[in-house]
Amino acid sequence: MYNVKEIQPVTKYEDGMLHEMEDSIATEYPLTVYVNGEEFATMVCTPTNMEELIVGFLASDGLIRFPDEIESLSIDESKGFAYVDLKNKSISGDSFSNKRFIGSCCGKSRQFYFQHDAKTAKTITSRTTITVENCIKLMREMQEGSSDFQETGGLHNTALCSTEGVILSRSDIGRHNALDKIYGHCLLNNVSLKEKIIVFSGRISSEVLLKVSKIGVGIILSKSAPTTLAIELAEDLGITAVGFVRGNRLNIYSHPDRIINEVN
Amino acid sequence: MYNVKEIQPVTKYEDGMLHEMEDSIATEYPLTVYVNGEEFATMVCTPTNMEELIVGFLASDGLIRFPDEIESLSIDESKGFAYVDLKNKSISGDSFSNKRFIGSCCGKSRQFYFQHDAKTAKTITSRTTITVENCIKLMREMQEGSSDFQETGGLHNTALCSTEGVILSRSDIGRHNALDKIYGHCLLNNVSLKEKIIVFSGRISSEVLLKVSKIGVGIILSKSAPTTLAIELAEDLGITAVGFVRGNRLNIYSHPDRIINEVN
Repeated sequence: MYNVKEIQPVTKYEDGMLHEMEDSIATEYPLTVYVNGEEFATMVCTPTNMEELIVGFLASDGLIRFPDEIESLSIDESKGFAYVDLKNKSISGDSFSNKRFIGSCCGKSRQFYFQHDAKTAKTITSRTTITVENCIKLMREMQEGSSDFQETGGLHNTALCSTEGVILSRSDIGRHNALDKIYGHCLLNNVSLKEKIIVFSGRISSEVLLKVSKIGVGIILSKSAPTTLAIELAEDLGITAVGFVRGNRLNIYSHPDRIINEVN
Repeated sequence: MYNVKEIQPVTKYEDGMLHEMEDSIATEYPLTVYVNGEEFATMVCTPTNMEELIVGFLASDGLIRFPDEIESLSIDESKGFAYVDLKNKSISGDSFSNKRFIGSCCGKSRQFYFQHDAKTAKTITSRTTITVENCIKLMREMQEGSSDFQETGGLHNTALCSTEGVILSRSDIGRHNALDKIYGHCLLNNVSLKEKIIVFSGRISSEVLLKVSKIGVGIILSKSAPTTLAIELAEDLGITAVGFVRGNRLNIYSHPDRIINEVN
C-alpha cells in the first residue's frame, strides 16, 4: 500500500559532475482524523503504525485517556481518512477547535498549555536512574536501528527503552508523530512505563517535553538541543532532559540526579 | 526584553566526567495572534522580527495578500500577544478555523492544500539559473552567518539570496517561522523576488514548498532531505527543489534546468 519511502529520480552533483540517479525519499502522507463524525485534524505523517499514531494523538490532545474510550476506529488508507467514534458522544472536533495550535516546528498554544495540558501533563516522581554510558549506548542503538532514516535522511526516530536497551522504536517525518506512535503503542498494549526512558532524534521543544510527561516517562535523551521553555517545563514536571547525546558527550539540562557517572 | 537565547546552567558529560557549566539555550516564545478581535493562532517562535513573522504568517495563511490590507498591528511583547485589525472586518480567526492543520513537523491539511493553498500558491515560471558552485557557496554563507545557531544548536535559518550572495537572513526555532519572517520582510519592504533564491536549513516538506511558492521564488536550496509530497508539488508548481547541499555535493529533485554545472 503506502511505503515509508519511495524511489525517485534525482540529479546528483558529486565530484564536480551532475549524474542522473535514483534515491529513496521519505513518504509524506496526509491523514485526516474525524472524531464523532466531525473533522478534528489533519496531520502529515509517515504511513506506518497509524492506529498507534491516532490513539497517541487523541490521548496527547486529551480527547481520551485510555483506548477503551474509543468505540470504533477505522482507517481508509487509500484516501487518508481515519474515523474515530468515542463512547462519549459529546466530544467533537469542534469542542476542541479553539484550543488548536499552529504547528510550525514546535507549535504550542499558551492557552493549550495552561488550560488543557495542565489537566493531562503529569509530574514525574520516578526514581529511575541511568548511567551516562547507557545513555550513549541507547542513542547509538536507536540510530543504528533506523535504516529508513539512513536512506532517506528525512525521518525522526523515537524509542522507548529500558535503562539497558531499546524496547520499541518508531519513525515518522513528524517528530511529534513519532512520539505519538510510541504513546499509542503503550496505551494499546498496556506497556508499563516504570523504569522507562524516551530516546529521541529531534529537538526538545515544550511540546515534546509535554508529550513525554503525558506518556509518563521521567527521562528524555535527545540527539539535539532543548529550548528555554522546554527546560522550564522539565524542571516543573520532574523530567530529566538530556540533549546533544552525540559521540561520547551529553548535556543534562534538568533533574541531573537521575544520570549517574559511575567513574565520578 | 526577550533574547534569541538565554544562558542557563547545564551539567556536561565530556572526557568521562560530569562538569557544571553554562550554555546558550534557544528561547522559545509563545505568540498568540488575534485577528479582528478573535484569537486566530498561537505559534511558538524566536522573538525577533515579530512584525515580519506576523505579516508573513497572515499572507501565507491567505488572510492578506499585501500589508496595506492591515489596518493596525500591535504587539504586547511582555505578554506574547499580537493584535491585528484588518480593513476587511468580515475576516475572523473563526472563519479560518476549520482549515487549520496540526503542525507536527510538517503538518499540512489536505483540505488546506486543495481549498486554500490552491488560491495562494503560485506556479513559478522564472528563468533564473544558478551554478552548482554558487548553490554551495550560498549555503555556506548562510550557515556561517548564524552564530546563534552555532551557539544554541536549536535554530533554523532561512536566507533570501541573489544568485551571488545572501541578501537577508532570518532565524527561528520553528523552520516555518523563519520562512514567514522572510516572506513578511519581502511584503513589508516590497522586495523584488526576481532572480531570487531561498536557502533553508530544514527539510523540504510540502508545507515548506508551498511557502516558497507563495513567496514567489523558483529555487529552494536545503541542507536537508525533501519528502515525496514536496517533490510532487515542486514539479507541479515549477519550483527547483535542491536538497542535501552539504560539502561539495547536492541533489536536485525537480526542474533541474535551473541548476548549471559550468564544468559539464
